[in-house]
Amino acid sequence: MENTEKNERTVEIFDSTLRDGAQGEGISFSVQDKLNIVKTLDELGISYIEAGNPGSNPKDLEFFQEVKKIKLQNARLVAFGATRRKDISVESDVNLQSLLVAETSHVAIFGKSWDFQVREILKASLEENLSMIYETVAFLTKNNRKVIFDAEHFFDGYKANPEYALMSLKSAVKGGAICLSLCDTNGGTMPSQIKEIVEKVVKEFTPEGVTIGIHTHNDTGMAVANSVIAVEAGAGQVQGTFIGIGERTGNANLSTIIPNLELKLGYKCLPEGNIRLLTPYARRIAEIANVTLEETMPYVGQTAFAHKAGMHIDAVTKNTTAYEHVSPELVGNERVFLMSEVAGRSMIIEKIKKFDKTITKDSPVAAAIIQQVKELEHEGYQFEGADGSFELLVRKAIGKYQPFFKLHYYKILGEQPPLDKSLCSFAQLKIEVDGKEEITAGEGDGPVHALDVALRKALEHFFPAVADIRLTDYKVRVLDSKSATAARVRVLIESTDGIDQWATVGVSPDVMAASWQALVDSFEYKLIKDVEKKFKAYL
Amino acid sequence: MENTEKNERTVEIFDSTLRDGAQGEGISFSVQDKLNIVKTLDELGISYIEAGNPGSNPKDLEFFQEVKKIKLQNARLVAFGATRRKDISVESDVNLQSLLVAETSHVAIFGKSWDFQVREILKASLEENLSMIYETVAFLTKNNRKVIFDAEHFFDGYKANPEYALMSLKSAVKGGAICLSLCDTNGGTMPSQIKEIVEKVVKEFTPEGVTIGIHTHNDTGMAVANSVIAVEAGAGQVQGTFIGIGERTGNANLSTIIPNLELKLGYKCLPEGNIRLLTPYARRIAEIANVTLEETMPYVGQTAFAHKAGMHIDAVTKNTTAYEHVSPELVGNERVFLMSEVAGRSMIIEKIKKFDKTITKDSPVAAAIIQQVKELEHEGYQFEGADGSFELLVRKAIGKYQPFFKLHYYKILGEQPPLDKSLCSFAQLKIEVDGKEEITAGEGDGPVHALDVALRKALEHFFPAVADIRLTDYKVRVLDSKSATAARVRVLIESTDGIDQWATVGVSPDVMAASWQALVDSFEYKLIKDVEKKFKAYL
Repeated sequence: MENTEKNERTVEIFDSTLRDGAQGEGISFSVQDKLNIVKTLDELGISYIEAGNPGSNPKDLEFFQEVKKIKLQNARLVAFGATRRKDISVESDVNLQSLLVAETSHVAIFGKSWDFQVREILKASLEENLSMIYETVAFLTKNNRKVIFDAEHFFDGYKANPEYALMSLKSAVKGGAICLSLCDTNGGTMPSQIKEIVEKVVKEFTPEGVTIGIHTHNDTGMAVANSVIAVEAGAGQVQGTFIGIGERTGNANLSTIIPNLELKLGYKCLPEGNIRLLTPYARRIAEIANVTLEETMPYVGQTAFAHKAGMHIDAVTKNTTAYEHVSPELVGNERVFLMSEVAGRSMIIEKIKKFDKTITKDSPVAAAIIQQVKELEHEGYQFEGADGSFELLVRKAIGKYQPFFKLHYYKILGEQPPLDKSLCSFAQLKIEVDGKEEITAGEGDGPVHALDVALRKALEHFFPAVADIRLTDYKVRVLDSKSATAARVRVLIESTDGIDQWATVGVSPDVMAASWQALVDSFEYKLIKDVEKKFKAYL
Repeated sequence: MENTEKNERTVEIFDSTLRDGAQGEGISFSVQDKLNIVKTLDELGISYIEAGNPGSNPKDLEFFQEVKKIKLQNARLVAFGATRRKDISVESDVNLQSLLVAETSHVAIFGKSWDFQVREILKASLEENLSMIYETVAFLTKNNRKVIFDAEHFFDGYKANPEYALMSLKSAVKGGAICLSLCDTNGGTMPSQIKEIVEKVVKEFTPEGVTIGIHTHNDTGMAVANSVIAVEAGAGQVQGTFIGIGERTGNANLSTIIPNLELKLGYKCLPEGNIRLLTPYARRIAEIANVTLEETMPYVGQTAFAHKAGMHIDAVTKNTTAYEHVSPELVGNERVFLMSEVAGRSMIIEKIKKFDKTITKDSPVAAAIIQQVKELEHEGYQFEGADGSFELLVRKAIGKYQPFFKLHYYKILGEQPPLDKSLCSFAQLKIEVDGKEEITAGEGDGPVHALDVALRKALEHFFPAVADIRLTDYKVRVLDSKSATAARVRVLIESTDGIDQWATVGVSPDVMAASWQALVDSFEYKLIKDVEKKFKAYL
């Protein structure tokens, strides 16, 4: 149920995927990756993009030179850095000089708000820390930068010594900061405390024309809630990373916070209508960052609107609000029906009907297909993500299938040291089509590659359309890790012919046999689709 | 910072991994899996284990027979079912009969609280629905079952028609329910609404001696926050699944909620001291459910206490509270230092020092190692999870390594159809140790298995200790999926000799070459450790 009571207040979204997100495990952005993410976030209509720390990282400095060539439509770029070092002047701090060289309109400066951290980590006096904040912000403001002050450990600091925490904010305001971002750096603060503390800060500082920001981490699973609660308490800026990547348990996930604020609470974060880009853009950013988007991620995940319980599927089919809190289309996602033993038949029937409308839930063939799906799932197959293999399975069951070729054998040879340059895998195979045999061989970077090359060569001889197939993804999952190298593996292949996309699956203890199954399914699926198109009139 | 102010109120934890969790994508429990999870949750000290719906699933009925043989120490088992069907009597409802057959002390009954759902999905009158609730609860209570009433869609119902939503609860209380579990079934309710509504229900029903429960889903990323906020508003029972699995975006994650309640807010959920079991038990449940525990999961994830930013590592080394909201040991997890280009040198130095204390951050060899790690990470290696390979890399750099054997060649043959029974992979290799050659061959379920068998055989000839090595996990990750079957893969192998555990890594476009690297590292790591133990006196 969307909240229809509109609150006209706008909330600035501040994305730190390229800075705080880069602290996530396994994350490493090239300069080109960073430029692509900047373009994506700008198109989406994010207010601020924090893009790196030019003082700590030469790659970031290069990036800030390159990014100047991009004309941004919506976003403002932010360079990130620390307050000046202790015992030196702002003018002689090389990191501050690097920040100026980045030539962004906005700069985010982090400084300490927790007295304990000032004494124990910074080893500075409490007064010195306040000077560092004031002087740094004033120096950048004097150099025509708009400064966002990130008050590191603000909530822990406030709990320990509220007066000092507030003094750190006052120093930043005195220096000319336009925004005070309150950071729950360790992610340990509970929502009720966030509410209380943000309300106090908002009351004290917003009369001075300063925006209050919130910057949370997910160490207690509260990053999204704490951000939303801070906005309800008066914060006007939310800092996070678009798909939640970040150090430890990650930063506040903006792809969850934005629809919560817009669809549930009536705030405005993105340009009108752009919320529909949420899912495709989240997936694009995951792709660029080379991370797998969590399937269960709210709003944008693959299963965010997936229904498995038979009862739920029946109900959703009757009325979409039954088990959906918003329509998936609103955020650019889609409804999915999963198969499972608890799902009952209705969903498999839905899928079967897509290409044979004559089958009803009472057809015996429907029961046979359901039984077969259950058995294969037990062996480790997953048809939830393999539409191509599922269609072939149904076709085989209802008699709308005949094989395009027969395999006589394949042989794969892998060798170290490589026989020829770096190549170390070779495949040979023999297939038969309409009584005609074809023997081919291929070589490749690995055994599956060599097998793919050899099979393509053989099939193209009979079916030239195979040349159009491009494999876009190849995934291997070890199913039963207990027996280690003898474990069963599931191979998932995604394919395209430039127009359609399909996915196929294979399972075996032998990675090559599993790959072979998925490969054959992919090629056959394409050939069937071509037959359907070409001979539509006769079918 | 832990909250030291103790609140003596106990919160009941109600785990539904085996019922609502089974709705998660890819989840399928065998009867044995279910029994293992029951034992695990009971040992941990969970109050209630909702274990299935005997009426909807014959496998669940079998489970309830088997589970009677287990003597539980802490938990009470709960069978789950719906209110009676409309237009029939409770006595003639077969699902209710199945619930009795399960012979659990407690039963959870879900019924509708949202007038819209009663009319549109159930197609019943509002009065009929109230009778269904009352009669079902009364029937089970009369049969000596303690009844927990799950008020489905309670919050959406309350928002639409508060009077009716409360009437559904009253019907359950009238029937004898001991607990009213308020369900945010679609997961769309914001924390501020949860607080307001739970406070009202608590005020109205707790004087009658009824416990108020909270049951949330994570569709808006609020499941954990909403649960904690409900407890602060007076709820005495939290329903969720231990590692958050469940339909769509998952259920409330108990492994996050429990430490939040115990360590942050001073509630009591588990028997004294058991919070230290949180991480190992979460991993055990993930293992049984055959899902990968999200690395970033609060408290229990692999990276929940991982530090990457150089600055953070420096600070944590100085003082652990700098970037940790609780000590990882408190929840049975551990601190990890990750390597990355932003990490600076201090963390790699920390790791190097573990086995060579003479190396300082100014040693030229340290710079060389850091450079090499960066280059290998660029190629796709990840040493974050491969301590064994990292130690070998450092040893090679500092000259504390010599190879145990030399590979002359290996050849792998894969064939379809299988030559001998189902076996389709064969490997042959030649190694040399101290001028002596050994040629061996092996067969296996797949090429890596065959290679493992052959290499073991050859090495055992020279180093009998190799027989102690058992590979406990084997993971394949496709790194660059754009080129599909020719993509680079990273293989991670985990090994044990029954005493120690270590992990090793290999990267190549050829899955066999990558597996070979990880395999060789694993065997060499073990042999080095044995030399260290045996010749300690001389080293």
